[in-house]
Amino acid sequence: MAITERASTSLSLNFKRIALISLLFVVGTASGAQFDAPYYVLEKKHAETWEQENKTINNKLASLEKKHGKKPNIIFILTDDIGYGELGSQGGGAVRGAPTPRLDQMANEGLLLNGFYSEPSCTPTRVALMTGRHPVRTGLTDVIFPGNPAGLAPEEVTIAEVLSEAGYATAMYGKWHLGEGEETWPHSQGFDETLFGLYNAAVWAWETPGETVMWKDDHTPEMFNRSVLGTLDARKGGKAKEVAPLNLETYKYFEEETYKRSVDFIKRNTNGEKPFFLYWASNAVSYFTSHPDWEGKSPQGTHFGDQMMEHDHYVGKILDTLQELGIAENTLVVWMSDNGPMYDMFPESSYTAFRGGKSDVLEGGVHVPAIAWWPGVIQPNQIDAETIHVVDFFTTAAKIGGAMDGIPTDRIVDGIEQSSYLLAGTPSRREYMFHYSGPKLGAVRVGQFKRHMAGGHGGLPGKAFFDVYKDPREEHGVMVQMLWAWVPFDDIVSMHNKAIEEYPHRKPYQSKMH
Amino acid sequence: MAITERASTSLSLNFKRIALISLLFVVGTASGAQFDAPYYVLEKKHAETWEQENKTINNKLASLEKKHGKKPNIIFILTDDIGYGELGSQGGGAVRGAPTPRLDQMANEGLLLNGFYSEPSCTPTRVALMTGRHPVRTGLTDVIFPGNPAGLAPEEVTIAEVLSEAGYATAMYGKWHLGEGEETWPHSQGFDETLFGLYNAAVWAWETPGETVMWKDDHTPEMFNRSVLGTLDARKGGKAKEVAPLNLETYKYFEEETYKRSVDFIKRNTNGEKPFFLYWASNAVSYFTSHPDWEGKSPQGTHFGDQMMEHDHYVGKILDTLQELGIAENTLVVWMSDNGPMYDMFPESSYTAFRGGKSDVLEGGVHVPAIAWWPGVIQPNQIDAETIHVVDFFTTAAKIGGAMDGIPTDRIVDGIEQSSYLLAGTPSRREYMFHYSGPKLGAVRVGQFKRHMAGGHGGLPGKAFFDVYKDPREEHGVMVQMLWAWVPFDDIVSMHNKAIEEYPHRKPYQSKMH
Repeated sequence: MAITERASTSLSLNFKRIALISLLFVVGTASGAQFDAPYYVLEKKHAETWEQENKTINNKLASLEKKHGKKPNIIFILTDDIGYGELGSQGGGAVRGAPTPRLDQMANEGLLLNGFYSEPSCTPTRVALMTGRHPVRTGLTDVIFPGNPAGLAPEEVTIAEVLSEAGYATAMYGKWHLGEGEETWPHSQGFDETLFGLYNAAVWAWETPGETVMWKDDHTPEMFNRSVLGTLDARKGGKAKEVAPLNLETYKYFEEETYKRSVDFIKRNTNGEKPFFLYWASNAVSYFTSHPDWEGKSPQGTHFGDQMMEHDHYVGKILDTLQELGIAENTLVVWMSDNGPMYDMFPESSYTAFRGGKSDVLEGGVHVPAIAWWPGVIQPNQIDAETIHVVDFFTTAAKIGGAMDGIPTDRIVDGIEQSSYLLAGTPSRREYMFHYSGPKLGAVRVGQFKRHMAGGHGGLPGKAFFDVYKDPREEHGVMVQMLWAWVPFDDIVSMHNKAIEEYPHRKPYQSKMH
Repeated sequence: MAITERASTSLSLNFKRIALISLLFVVGTASGAQFDAPYYVLEKKHAETWEQENKTINNKLASLEKKHGKKPNIIFILTDDIGYGELGSQGGGAVRGAPTPRLDQMANEGLLLNGFYSEPSCTPTRVALMTGRHPVRTGLTDVIFPGNPAGLAPEEVTIAEVLSEAGYATAMYGKWHLGEGEETWPHSQGFDETLFGLYNAAVWAWETPGETVMWKDDHTPEMFNRSVLGTLDARKGGKAKEVAPLNLETYKYFEEETYKRSVDFIKRNTNGEKPFFLYWASNAVSYFTSHPDWEGKSPQGTHFGDQMMEHDHYVGKILDTLQELGIAENTLVVWMSDNGPMYDMFPESSYTAFRGGKSDVLEGGVHVPAIAWWPGVIQPNQIDAETIHVVDFFTTAAKIGGAMDGIPTDRIVDGIEQSSYLLAGTPSRREYMFHYSGPKLGAVRVGQFKRHMAGGHGGLPGKAFFDVYKDPREEHGVMVQMLWAWVPFDDIVSMHNKAIEEYPHRKPYQSKMH
C-alpha cells in the first residue's frame, strides 16, 4: 500500500496573517468551550473549511455509531520518557538494540504522528492529557516527588469525567503521578476502576511500608527515609487499597499487571452497552528492573531495552485483542510518550535525535513519538509531521465521544479539536504552540519557527529563534533572519497573556497527604 | 501487512569467539575471490549455516532465471550527502519540511537497511561501490577536487566490468567523481553508455570552458580560475563529448536529465536478451540550485528541501516504470546515500540524528540511509539494523548476476556477499567493519561495539570505545567498561594488517588530465 506522507503547508505566510488578524480580534466570542486566544484567530480564518470538515466528521461519527450501535471506544497508551527516534519506524528500534516491531506495525497500519508534542516532563504531560489544559493553568507545573503536596485539583475536569458523563465505562491502569491525596487519584477523577502507582521508577522506593528496599540493601540515610505507597487498587466511590509495596521486586511485574488489567477491562466491556475509555499509563520505561521473561532479551543489554521490547509486545497484544474481539473498527488507539529521554539515567535511558531531553523545551524534551490507530477509519501507511499537542487529545476524545458539551466553559482549554486531522487527513488545526517550562513560558512555536523565551540577552530578550525544519537540533540561532517575526511573535504571546488575565491560573492545589 | 523488524543477535559473545578463532586461522585459504582476513573466521564459524543459505539462494536465483528467462536486472541509486534520519521512514521527511513519500513507500514495499554503512565521503564511497574494496586499497582515499590527478586505476575491476562480462547491458548516469582522465571515466570502466559529471555541486563551477559563472557574477580571482568539465556523454569504446558546461543554469536540470536517461535505458532494455545494470548516481543533493518545477516546493524553504522532493519523486517514477513494464519482479533496486550530511553548507545541508557528518567516521559520517526493493523477492515491510557496508553491494551484485567468477582473485575484495541477507532474511554476514578515514584506519566495529583508532592518549592509543546501541551519538566513551575487548579488537586489526602485507595497497593512480 502506498505511504502517504502528508505535505506540510508553509505556515510562515499564515503566520503573518495571524498576526495581522490578531489586532482586530476580541477574546472569547465563541460559544461553548473557551479556548486560548490565538485559536480564535485560526477559527475565524478557517471558518468555512472547518465547518465543512466538521460536517464530514459528524457524518462519519454518526454512521459509525449507527454501524456499531454505540460511540467509539477510546484507548490512550501513555509511555514514560521515550524519545523521538526510538521507534524502528523513526530510525531507532533495532538500531538501538531494542526492536519495536509491533509499534512499527501499529504505525504502519495507522498514522505516525511525527509532529506530536508533549509537555516537558511526566506530571505536566499527565495533567495536560487529563484536563486538556497546559499545566500552568492548574498550577501543577512540575514533576511531583514523594512528599510534595501538589496534586490534581478536584475542580479540574478530566477526560474520564467528561466521557463518564457521556456514558463511557472508564479505567486507568499504570502510573498516575498526579498527587498523593486520595482526592487526586484516578477513582476520584472520573475513572470507574483503576490499578495504579503514584510514581514510576523504583528509584522512589528508598523505603516502603513494611519493607525497606533499594539496590537490594539499605544504604539510605535514615533522615532521608520516607514512606511511599505502592500499587493501589480502587473503584469509583470506594477507597483505594494498597495491594503491593513499591520495591524492585514488585516493580518488575507492574507493566505486565497493568497490561493484563487493560486487556481484562477491554474484554469485559466488549459487548456491554457502554463504549469504553481506557487510559493505560504504561510503566515503560522505568530503568531499574526487567521482567524475568524479558531480562537480557534486548541486544542493547539494558533494562531500558528489555522494557521497550516488553512494552512493544504488550501494545501488539492489545491491538491483537481488539482485532480478535471484532471491535478494532470501533476503537481509536493513541500511543504516545510523555516527554523526551531522561539522560540522567544513561545508559539506562532512552535517546532522541533532537537536542535536549526530559525537562527541556528544546525539541528533545517535548517532540516525542506518537501513533494513532483505528482500522477502517484512520487510513493506514500515513507518516505526518504537522504539529499536534498532547492537550489536543482531551478535546478530540471529547468530540469522538460525543461529549463536547462536557468540556467546562469557565476556564481556558488549550486542547484543539483534531478529529478531522486524525480521521479525515485534513490539516492539523494547531498552527501555534506554547511550550511551558515549569511555570514560565519557555518557547513559542508557529509553523516551522520556534522562539525560545529565554532570559535577557543584552537588551534582546527572547532572541533565540530557530527554524526547526532546517535545524531540528536547534543549534543555529537565526535571530537576525527572524527579525521580521519579532513583533508577530510578541503579538501572539500578548494575546495569550491577555486571555490569562481574563481566566487567571488556578492557585496550586494542595493535596491531602496519605 | 505486518512489519518485521528483525531482531539483532547479540554479537558480543560471537566477538569473543572470533578473537579466539583468529589465533588458529591462516589467511587466504579460501578458493576464488580473496576477502579480508576476519571474513574467513566468520566463514569457518558459520560454514554449515552459510552453505545451507547459499543453496537456498542458488535455488531461488535459478528459479527466478527460469521464470524470467534472464538474470535479474540490478539498479543502484546512489545519492549525495543525505544523512541517516532524513527519510520520513526514519523520522525525517515532513519533520524536516521535505517529505519523502515515495522513498517511504519504497522502504515500505521492501527492506529498510537501517544498518547500512558507507565510506565517509563522496569519492571513497564511489570507489567502494564500484570495486567492492575499501578506497585505501586503491589509493583513492579522499574526495577528488578539480585539478587533482587522482583517479580510478584502469587495473581496478568495477562491478560494471564484472556484470558486462557476465552478459549485462550497463549504464551510468550522474555524478562520477572518480577522476579527470578519460581512462578513469565510466565508459572506460565497464559502462556501455553514460551521461555524467565529474563532480557534484555547482560549487565547482567557478569557471567553465566558454563561460565564466558563479553566483551569477564573476568574483573569482583569476589565479584561482580553473577549467572544469561539464556534462559528458560517452559510450564504451568511444570518446566522451562535453554536451553542457558546468554552471548554475545547467545544473538545475542535471538530476532530471540523468533520471530521464535512466528511465530511457530501462525501457530500451526491458525486452532485450540481456539483463541490465543501471547505476544512477543522483545529483541529490547539490545545494545551490532548484529545478524550476521544484523551486520553493519544499516547506523547508531550501534548495536542499526542493531537491529531496524532486529526487524522491523521480525514485518513485522509476519504481512505477519497473512496475508498468512488468519487470519489477526481476529487478533489484538499491537506494543508498554516499555519506552523511555536509554541515558546512548549513542551512543548505542534510541532517542526521547521529554525531558527526561527511568526512567523519563517527556514525553521522558513515551510517547512512539505504533501502533494498525487489517485489516478490524481498519481503515488504521490513526494517532491519544489522550491519551491511557499501562494498558488500559489489559482491552481492556479482552473486545475483551470476558473476562471482568475474571478481578478481589477485587482490583483497572487502565486499561480503549478502544475497541471503537481502533476499532470504537470514542474518547479515558482516560482523566486523573497518572505517577508514582517508588513508588511516579510523574506527573498527564489531557488533554493537566501535573502537575509534584515534591518536595516542597518554599511553592509551585507540581508547575511544563506544557502544553504539546504548549511545548512538558516540558521546559517552566506555573504555573502562571495554577493557575486556582491548586485545580482541587488536587481534582483528592485526589480522587485517597482516592481510595487507600479503596484498599491499595499490600505489595511488595518477590520472591523465583532460
